[in-house]
Amino acid sequence: MINYTEITAIPGGVCAARGFAANGIRCGIRASSKKRDLALIVSERRCAAAAVYTANLVKSAPIRVTREHLADGYAQAVICNSGNANTCNANGVEIAQGMCALVERYTGVPAFDVIVGSTGVIGQPMSLEPMERGMAELASGLGDNSNLAEDAIMTTDTVPKEAAVEFEIEGVKCRLGGIAKGSGMIHPNMATMLVFVTSDCAITPQMLQRAVSEDVKTSFNMVSVDGDTSTNDTFAVMANGMAGNQVIDSKGADFDIFRAALHTVTVKLCRMIAKDGEGATKLLSCILSGAGEPETAKTVAKSVICSSLTKAAMFGADANWGRVLCAIGYSGADVDVEKVDVSFRSRAGQVDVCKNGAGIPFSEEEAKRVLLEDEIDILVNLNDGDFSAEAWGCDLTYDYVKINGDYRT
Amino acid sequence: MINYTEITAIPGGVCAARGFAANGIRCGIRASSKKRDLALIVSERRCAAAAVYTANLVKSAPIRVTREHLADGYAQAVICNSGNANTCNANGVEIAQGMCALVERYTGVPAFDVIVGSTGVIGQPMSLEPMERGMAELASGLGDNSNLAEDAIMTTDTVPKEAAVEFEIEGVKCRLGGIAKGSGMIHPNMATMLVFVTSDCAITPQMLQRAVSEDVKTSFNMVSVDGDTSTNDTFAVMANGMAGNQVIDSKGADFDIFRAALHTVTVKLCRMIAKDGEGATKLLSCILSGAGEPETAKTVAKSVICSSLTKAAMFGADANWGRVLCAIGYSGADVDVEKVDVSFRSRAGQVDVCKNGAGIPFSEEEAKRVLLEDEIDILVNLNDGDFSAEAWGCDLTYDYVKINGDYRT
Repeated sequence: MINYTEITAIPGGVCAARGFAANGIRCGIRASSKKRDLALIVSERRCAAAAVYTANLVKSAPIRVTREHLADGYAQAVICNSGNANTCNANGVEIAQGMCALVERYTGVPAFDVIVGSTGVIGQPMSLEPMERGMAELASGLGDNSNLAEDAIMTTDTVPKEAAVEFEIEGVKCRLGGIAKGSGMIHPNMATMLVFVTSDCAITPQMLQRAVSEDVKTSFNMVSVDGDTSTNDTFAVMANGMAGNQVIDSKGADFDIFRAALHTVTVKLCRMIAKDGEGATKLLSCILSGAGEPETAKTVAKSVICSSLTKAAMFGADANWGRVLCAIGYSGADVDVEKVDVSFRSRAGQVDVCKNGAGIPFSEEEAKRVLLEDEIDILVNLNDGDFSAEAWGCDLTYDYVKINGDYRT
Repeated sequence: MINYTEITAIPGGVCAARGFAANGIRCGIRASSKKRDLALIVSERRCAAAAVYTANLVKSAPIRVTREHLADGYAQAVICNSGNANTCNANGVEIAQGMCALVERYTGVPAFDVIVGSTGVIGQPMSLEPMERGMAELASGLGDNSNLAEDAIMTTDTVPKEAAVEFEIEGVKCRLGGIAKGSGMIHPNMATMLVFVTSDCAITPQMLQRAVSEDVKTSFNMVSVDGDTSTNDTFAVMANGMAGNQVIDSKGADFDIFRAALHTVTVKLCRMIAKDGEGATKLLSCILSGAGEPETAKTVAKSVICSSLTKAAMFGADANWGRVLCAIGYSGADVDVEKVDVSFRSRAGQVDVCKNGAGIPFSEEEAKRVLLEDEIDILVNLNDGDFSAEAWGCDLTYDYVKINGDYRT
């Protein structure tokens, strides 16, 4: 078991680790928008790099290009725009490649070592022109600007999302930090999310890919905002080795602590993404215990978090636990519903509402007090084994509908 | 192929077929509600009877009792309440059996020939008392009152849902009609819906069950309002044989016409249920063609109808076809996304928006005009084969959130 207390939160996002610089500017991808729309992250040295992508069959052009660039396990920079998803565009691959070529021209990092991402509307024509115009400003401003890069990749996000930690590998201090954008079209596997993580830890590309692929199963794949799996999801990690630890090239204690550090950052980002779901007023965490199988734990936790009716009830601070039970019942997992216990918990306390699959008396007033908080835990015990899981979502609100009723205009 | 023109729409709902009477009253299951809450349908003669139920592992007590009663293939009455789902209640089976006993006491139909249904909040204590008090009034008012029975089973439904048809089997006029309630917690397989259909056609219980089980695959299992599969869904059909046709006891032309008549009624009810989804302002039909496999057609059509983002875009009359393509991509079906065509169609016309998986120029103004109508067809051609499917849903609106944010109070 990892001692998570040895992993310390620090500021700095993607610039927390040694050798990474970032920037974000407005280049004008959408004439109507005043926000930053182009982000750049660059490492001093070439990095081991690994990524996972959306399971949607419709994949953005940037994903196709990034996949090729990461085939050798290395990268040195990330470029990412908001305002256009560069998906279902006739010249999408050309544009994505053009973005990487711009990075080469302005930073010297070879185009084949660039990770490229896009987020925004699908199927809108896109031009390189605004990025060509903005690139000099973007590159010359590279520095300790994780916050600006984060701002530039946001779409309907209302708050920036970054996290970083410090940890030790055999006495050598390492750092790892990330930025994320989320908000809508977010559902396992994975969410419409772009997550870029940097570290100065030394690790081989193979072990880094293993860490990323394992991590995502209990982090980003356990987040749902609206059940829609995006076409652009990318979770990419670059590790440049500048911490000077002995390179992690196999399983063992060093790998475990790296995994734990990564998971600390990704879970923080997951919770931030869920809490900032489009229109959300609350973070919902389904904390599932007592499952007979690991997959059952995950399936049931996700089903609860995805239930529109449960989400709407949480918006209304309504302890309508029947909807939780209903979502457990239709999850597809093999569950003995007559053993299920359900409680709601928040800073304001805990209220038990269902025992052995049937209602138990509780104070509506107390339940209301618990559910009016902005971070709600839905505790489900299947009483059928020792496996557990956690999934994160948000409430369903008027504003989700408002934001998505006319997103393009 | 069936000639559907020989199937004529008629009025009368569950009382259209010979020998059926119905009624609906308010007995006061929820003190706070003024609406009718108890429905009764009775046949003069014992009927062949068949049903399908929710796939949710959490099943209402009425379903458990109805299953037992239909084990022999026969029934003669339906009793159904709204205002309480009788699910996850300690004494649920006792209450459901008590409802059937009340039917026996007041109509003479044996309790074991009664189909029982409930709809409303899950996990609320329930008492037989209001039904005991109302039963004399309910039974004495039995007559040509399909509309009252329909009214009594409604919950958040805003319009009654009934349909009936007349058709001929070997020159003998037969009738078949039904009532349905829908609105929320509606998702394949099946939806929170209660559907009761009656017919005077003579058919064996075995062939009736076959007809029902086949029908549901392309009718109620293709409806989604919110992705939540209810605990109480029941689709039950009773056929009393009073039309006098030669009994349908095998596959063949007679069975086919019965199937077609049933499907005509169930599809009408599906469209009504989807259009009256909680908070809905529009009926969305995804008409899927060109699939390589029948299951692909169904999976993709349902995925489009279930996409929260597509549903919200339709509410906003926003031709954001990228969300349709996204939902096709994450459906889980094996689709070549680069062959997909998408169009939107309504009474106001048709606008083609995507060809071979990429956007094509279209007039936003014309698209708006098409999408402002209240019945929208989303036409998807996979251009990969000859199979087709149709699925029905509705838009996602502020009112869905409002209704479900505090349903219990």
